[in-house]
Amino acid sequence: RRRSCWYEEEIEENLRWCFALNSILHTGASQYQDIALLDTKPFGKALVIDGKLQSAEIDEFIYHELLVHPALLHHQNPKTIFIMGGGEGSTAREILRHGSVERVIMCDIDEEVVDFCKSHLVANKDAFFDSRLQLVINDARAELQKSEDKFDVIIGDLADPIEGGPCYQLYTKSFYESTVKPRLNENGIFVTQARPAGVFSHTEVFSCIFNTLKQVFRYVVPYSAHIPSYADTWGWVLASDSPLPLDADELDLRIRQRINGENRYLDGKTFASASILSKAVRKSLAKETQVYTEGAAKFIYGHGTCSKLQPGAVQ
Amino acid sequence: RRRSCWYEEEIEENLRWCFALNSILHTGASQYQDIALLDTKPFGKALVIDGKLQSAEIDEFIYHELLVHPALLHHQNPKTIFIMGGGEGSTAREILRHGSVERVIMCDIDEEVVDFCKSHLVANKDAFFDSRLQLVINDARAELQKSEDKFDVIIGDLADPIEGGPCYQLYTKSFYESTVKPRLNENGIFVTQARPAGVFSHTEVFSCIFNTLKQVFRYVVPYSAHIPSYADTWGWVLASDSPLPLDADELDLRIRQRINGENRYLDGKTFASASILSKAVRKSLAKETQVYTEGAAKFIYGHGTCSKLQPGAVQ
Amino acid sequence: RRRSCWYEEEIEENLRWCFALNSILHTGASQYQDIALLDTKPFGKALVIDGKLQSAEIDEFIYHELLVHPALLHHQNPKTIFIMGGGEGSTAREILRHGSVERVIMCDIDEEVVDFCKSHLVANKDAFFDSRLQLVINDARAELQKSEDKFDVIIGDLADPIEGGPCYQLYTKSFYESTVKPRLNENGIFVTQARPAGVFSHTEVFSCIFNTLKQVFRYVVPYSAHIPSYADTWGWVLASDSPLPLDADELDLRIRQRINGENRYLDGKTFASASILSKAVRKSLAKETQVYTEGAAKFIYGHGTCSKLQPGAVQ
Amino acid sequence: RRRSCWYEEEIEENLRWCFALNSILHTGASQYQDIALLDTKPFGKALVIDGKLQSAEIDEFIYHELLVHPALLHHQNPKTIFIMGGGEGSTAREILRHGSVERVIMCDIDEEVVDFCKSHLVANKDAFFDSRLQLVINDARAELQKSEDKFDVIIGDLADPIEGGPCYQLYTKSFYESTVKPRLNENGIFVTQARPAGVFSHTEVFSCIFNTLKQVFRYVVPYSAHIPSYADTWGWVLASDSPLPLDADELDLRIRQRINGENRYLDGKTFASASILSKAVRKSLAKETQVYTEGAAKFIYGHGTCSKLQPGAVQ
Repeated sequence: RRRSCWYEEEIEENLRWCFALNSILHTGASQYQDIALLDTKPFGKALVIDGKLQSAEIDEFIYHELLVHPALLHHQNPKTIFIMGGGEGSTAREILRHGSVERVIMCDIDEEVVDFCKSHLVANKDAFFDSRLQLVINDARAELQKSEDKFDVIIGDLADPIEGGPCYQLYTKSFYESTVKPRLNENGIFVTQARPAGVFSHTEVFSCIFNTLKQVFRYVVPYSAHIPSYADTWGWVLASDSPLPLDADELDLRIRQRINGENRYLDGKTFASASILSKAVRKSLAKETQVYTEGAAKFIYGHGTCSKLQPGAVQ
Repeated sequence: RRRSCWYEEEIEENLRWCFALNSILHTGASQYQDIALLDTKPFGKALVIDGKLQSAEIDEFIYHELLVHPALLHHQNPKTIFIMGGGEGSTAREILRHGSVERVIMCDIDEEVVDFCKSHLVANKDAFFDSRLQLVINDARAELQKSEDKFDVIIGDLADPIEGGPCYQLYTKSFYESTVKPRLNENGIFVTQARPAGVFSHTEVFSCIFNTLKQVFRYVVPYSAHIPSYADTWGWVLASDSPLPLDADELDLRIRQRINGENRYLDGKTFASASILSKAVRKSLAKETQVYTEGAAKFIYGHGTCSKLQPGAVQ
Repeated sequence: RRRSCWYEEEIEENLRWCFALNSILHTGASQYQDIALLDTKPFGKALVIDGKLQSAEIDEFIYHELLVHPALLHHQNPKTIFIMGGGEGSTAREILRHGSVERVIMCDIDEEVVDFCKSHLVANKDAFFDSRLQLVINDARAELQKSEDKFDVIIGDLADPIEGGPCYQLYTKSFYESTVKPRLNENGIFVTQARPAGVFSHTEVFSCIFNTLKQVFRYVVPYSAHIPSYADTWGWVLASDSPLPLDADELDLRIRQRINGENRYLDGKTFASASILSKAVRKSLAKETQVYTEGAAKFIYGHGTCSKLQPGAVQ
Repeated sequence: RRRSCWYEEEIEENLRWCFALNSILHTGASQYQDIALLDTKPFGKALVIDGKLQSAEIDEFIYHELLVHPALLHHQNPKTIFIMGGGEGSTAREILRHGSVERVIMCDIDEEVVDFCKSHLVANKDAFFDSRLQLVINDARAELQKSEDKFDVIIGDLADPIEGGPCYQLYTKSFYESTVKPRLNENGIFVTQARPAGVFSHTEVFSCIFNTLKQVFRYVVPYSAHIPSYADTWGWVLASDSPLPLDADELDLRIRQRINGENRYLDGKTFASASILSKAVRKSLAKETQVYTEGAAKFIYGHGTCSKLQPGAVQ
């Protein structure tokens, strides 16, 4: 039987990705964004913000295991974690699986999105009610700037920087230098999602985020993996002033020692593979010269929210 | 401006992938298949057979470099190559870049498709007219069975095995055992494309092709890479009775020594990464028990051609 | 903002009609059919059965006023009405607006569809609970054949006759002659919806239904009107052995005298316009020679249900 | 077999109309507009300007017969005709079928569109080379204003007035009063296409164009007909200071006497039906109070061209 109801995402102006729908479970709107929870046939429940897929039930574990665990595992003993964004709750959920973690701050600007996810995303229920989690509704930059705490790991799980409204202030060299790094403990680690890292799509912002972090941290490790529901290879970047060892066996050991429950995607070998980029991407990253500064943002396709929050941001 | 003209592919019943169109360059039909060459905005010229994308101008190099070079590079001195299928010409083009190669047989069943590609795919023009290439229009199985030649490398570049009409006879244990292996020279290597190898999609046929080849060859190496225009991670399997060394530096050395022109996608590190599968896929392949036999084909979504060719095949 | 969720109908193999979706209100399935109530942006709530739009909130009044009122108004004093199909309830609702009507039998084969509509279609609530309405779950042909009652008006509001499963037995000359006509009172009137009646689409079945009824009744009046949500001009055919006067003023008088509430679409002039077909359609109907018989059904695009009910029907 | 290539038109933000494509025959761009000639499966060759269907091979005769013949037939002896727009050539083709016509001026602003149609629309070849046709490349308003000729019939066949760029200056009361009417001979007739006239869509601009013309001419006759490829009922308005008789037989007589070849859509009865609007539309037109003036344009969905031509127009 032909499918009648479809979710359609415009990945780029010239490219669409369409999922057959079972139902439209919930819709809502905050002052910043439209939000919907869809039940899709190919990817299960899908969280969509402003017409862009944020995460899908059946494969969000890839994104969130790769965002959280490499950073925490490369740290000797991660106790305090700061999440920039992350209102969906999945990033907190993965962090809280680490036995060493004592305190997690999730700082998201959009309370309605957080409430929506808290109500509707069953898989993250426990995380939202974990006593180690502290939820702050604020702009992550403002929050870090006023904070006097330091953290073992800071995680960038921000809405994408997008054309006409990028969160680019949270991706600039000066932000990393003046705001992030001073809030890291010694041996602290920063990690951020970095948009697509495919053979062509890595030039969008991945290579530039990598190059920007290289200006600020001594050790920077880009890595990537294909996420089916995103129809692309996704990228993340680890950064620290302490060496980042990459040995697969050591990672596997730490996984066994520290993480409650079993990872579905990540183990030592998987990270080894993810952190060896293909020839084309490696060459391109090596040649990248652009650095994100306040005055030189890159724009990507879509519609973002940060500019709405910070109207004076683009000067 | 909104795009008006679109190519739409039903990847699965519940999943569509749509490219904005510049134009429909050529259409044709053979006795077996409909064929079209489209000019798409996101992926350049795209060859479509029976409504399924075969290859796209901007990223076919990923598929073809990964299909051809690992097999030839792992061989000491590949001189004679047999391609099952490959009528598009790109596989031959990559093979012919190897200085050691003296003779390539491309055996495709569909003369009209071959002629169509010969006429319209500019990038493969030189390959089609290379004196080392011999084109045979025949069923690859029949051709191998009647052949008295042996080959250093045999490459499976076949149309996908598909529901209602699979080429499954060219993926069975008995075919590998009785037809392919006897036609390999000593230290010969077999490689085949193996459909998607994503975290979910690898169970379609990739894990089973891997397991089937394991019954027949001593050394079997599955590997995978994301191909943007396919909207998935794709898989290939190398198989041989000689050890398959995987050292990245040695591969890089052989690439420099043997291959004319520069690879765009593949080098030693890229192959190292491609041949380390993610945890989920690795576990799944390790547990795979199914073997393709004449009586137990797996069917996949789409519409194929082999059943039309071999009406008595499914019994 | 781009729309993300869409209902897509394949009107023909080569033609699609797509509505942005607010939500998927209810879905269900009977033994015969899939059923869904969608909330669409362009046409309000839409009832969809087996992937085909049945009626849309904002313009179903056109279809139902044109199906019901011309037949009842052309009758001197309609008291008893038999609806073949009509489980949605809108046809009964329009009939029950006539003060003269004492008894309405709605005979639909699919109890789940009737229950679904009773529960979810608010506009028809009163009709479903009107004491003059009698609901029968049965095949309309079987019901009429066993019935000993006669009716002033019989209304065909059947699911479309469709390829691979037409209700064609309810559109044949023998059915009209042996089953419908004997159950009409003297001066009784039969009316049926007759699928599209557009300048091209009338050749699908409209012209043939018209011609078939002409073999059985002395007076036959085809008429048509554009229904926006159907993306086509729709057709109906009135048939009787009594003359069918068409005077606009007389119709307007009867509307005022007999119908409670105000019509939204139909008045005397509207029917005058609707019953003058365009030159192309008029010529085509005049030349039509085909008659529906048991052995010569016409098939139309889609997927129907009657064949499932009457598996021995097509011989 | 599923269709792979589609033309997709956004009729409104919430409504799409999609045709399977055989091929994209020609594309081009003028300084004002993008233009394409597509070969579609459901409607044959289709002329598309700026992503909006202009006319389709299989049913453009409905639009053009209804635009041209009622006006010319209601005139006693039409000799000179002025077409505002009409660069496609089909309007001229229908005019030139009238034996009485001695001179036709087609005044279109976009030379590239005219050249494109002249080259590619085979059905209009003869018309373009008819010695009675004079082609002028100019803004129709400027051309009429500077002209010293008068015409028996003036025909508005303009690109639609559209949001952000309406040709609304060619639909205002002052334009009709000061520019059109003075250029009509005694007993002259004006006719214009007037966008959709469906049960809902007539409020877009049809009712307002009707009401505006009523302010300027003594006799105004709105009429409408469903055009399949437009997925809607379309509207036109006749206007004159001489009475507009509507007798079907007289129209049929004049058709026989004056028009070479046979009409496919229009005869006396068809016009009678087309000029009786449905109750809902009739009531709505009777209540319409809005008049197009320079300062009160209505905007409709899409993207137009006139504003590009007349940048100072909207003040």
